[in-house]
Amino acid sequence: MIPQTTETTPKEVVSAALFVEPELIKRIIAAELPKNLQDAALYAVSGGGKRVRPALTLLCCEAVGGSWDEAMAAAVAVEYIHCFSLVHDDLPCIDDDNLRRGKATLHIHTNEAMAILAGDLLLPLAMQQISNGTLEPTLEAQLCHTLSKATVEMVRGQVYDTLGGLPEHLNDLEGLESIHRNKTGSLIHGACKMGALCGNATDDQLQAIDTFGHCIGLMFQIVDDLIDLHSPAHHVGKATGKDAAAGKTTYPGVLGVEKSKAAIEKLKKQAKTALKTLGKTGKTLQTFNVWMACRTR
Amino acid sequence: MIPQTTETTPKEVVSAALFVEPELIKRIIAAELPKNLQDAALYAVSGGGKRVRPALTLLCCEAVGGSWDEAMAAAVAVEYIHCFSLVHDDLPCIDDDNLRRGKATLHIHTNEAMAILAGDLLLPLAMQQISNGTLEPTLEAQLCHTLSKATVEMVRGQVYDTLGGLPEHLNDLEGLESIHRNKTGSLIHGACKMGALCGNATDDQLQAIDTFGHCIGLMFQIVDDLIDLHSPAHHVGKATGKDAAAGKTTYPGVLGVEKSKAAIEKLKKQAKTALKTLGKTGKTLQTFNVWMACRTR
Repeated sequence: MIPQTTETTPKEVVSAALFVEPELIKRIIAAELPKNLQDAALYAVSGGGKRVRPALTLLCCEAVGGSWDEAMAAAVAVEYIHCFSLVHDDLPCIDDDNLRRGKATLHIHTNEAMAILAGDLLLPLAMQQISNGTLEPTLEAQLCHTLSKATVEMVRGQVYDTLGGLPEHLNDLEGLESIHRNKTGSLIHGACKMGALCGNATDDQLQAIDTFGHCIGLMFQIVDDLIDLHSPAHHVGKATGKDAAAGKTTYPGVLGVEKSKAAIEKLKKQAKTALKTLGKTGKTLQTFNVWMACRTR
Repeated sequence: MIPQTTETTPKEVVSAALFVEPELIKRIIAAELPKNLQDAALYAVSGGGKRVRPALTLLCCEAVGGSWDEAMAAAVAVEYIHCFSLVHDDLPCIDDDNLRRGKATLHIHTNEAMAILAGDLLLPLAMQQISNGTLEPTLEAQLCHTLSKATVEMVRGQVYDTLGGLPEHLNDLEGLESIHRNKTGSLIHGACKMGALCGNATDDQLQAIDTFGHCIGLMFQIVDDLIDLHSPAHHVGKATGKDAAAGKTTYPGVLGVEKSKAAIEKLKKQAKTALKTLGKTGKTLQTFNVWMACRTR
């Protein structure tokens, strides 16, 4: 279960991802589920991947003066939500994907009913992690609020992306930004904010992480769009060129490659400026920011 | 949007159900969803039904000295979870139901993708209702914990019922009880407990409601099994005899009709005894208890 990393992944991100990894497993086993459901849930969270979201939760906690341990429950919760969304998105009636990170998707590995129910499980299991009385009640309430809001927005983004429903007054770029901000950006932003809350951030720190999270969240998806367009599949580890084949609107599709890259640069600068508030403790997030903007898989 | 009731439904239950009804709608509209998703969510929560769970939340709050208003967010949250579970259970790969309370199920009314995503929406939307800062933080954390735990158990029960996975050492009756306690009982118990928490219950009151909730939760499903066996479909408002046709184990199937009725009587007595702790304010729940044990639809 070693997270998928490359030589370019900053070592702090790799360390944070590795720190979360065993907890993702342990907390599913602790839930005392039926064996078939436990196996499905373990399969759903064991696909590897970069673990960007839980790593961000730990690193944002650290960046405001907290410890990784303090943010563990929130990090696990965020990753469970991400994994639930992947399982449901892969279903035949939604994105109809048979492979995810080189492995059979859950409904192929088991069956559709189990994939739906394992997804349905991971969502409340995520909420349980951050409301089981191990954290301070006010913090638990804030975390539940942040995560449930982000999850609602993620589902909204998935609906926009799959079934339409964007407000008609939006132009192509605004529509695309709305899809990305909801579908991908909200949970990444939520991951950052939850980390900051766990680290008992001051208002200024919270504001800085808030801006950083919004920038990184949108940037993540624009970079993904460029990767899908350009990189050979064996480098990325999943099918590429899929967006264009599916007729999906993407940043390079709407803005062109150069303007997409400029949009990434702009978000990187905004994030960098916001992080200055954090001073020295923001250094790892600065590294993260640079990495995120130039990653190629 | 008038809840489905009969001449036998106690007027307090009807009043509580009617009190919740408009909030179920208002809070979806307040979420500012895409029009297609909003329509699907509204359809999912507008099927009528007895609204047993949210009514219990209000009545249990009242029974420990609180007001219906104090328990509204929790009541709505419980019903959103119930509605999400119905939408996903009805899907072709799970129970494959085309009708629910005489109306087309959501995946028939829209499509499977929308039914999955609308269910995925209602779950975090439920959690948002009880963590948005309008209640006291400690209460919000307790409610989130109670509801997420109940939802995990509900999914576990659905897996037992649909895909198996019961521990092998259980005999038929123990297995059946485990299915019912998880699939149906947990959320009904959660509904009661959340109401008591909203009413700021004492430990003794909480204990009474806890026992009441467990009894009512199991009783609800045994009564349902008997209704499925005996009542003509036009009286119940849905297909009956379906359990037997599907080869599902039921209480009358395992215990016979008379012993099933005896089990209901036993649970009714246990609930009645527990409610004595509440004194006069427990009167409505006593009425509820009697109604629940003898309802025929």
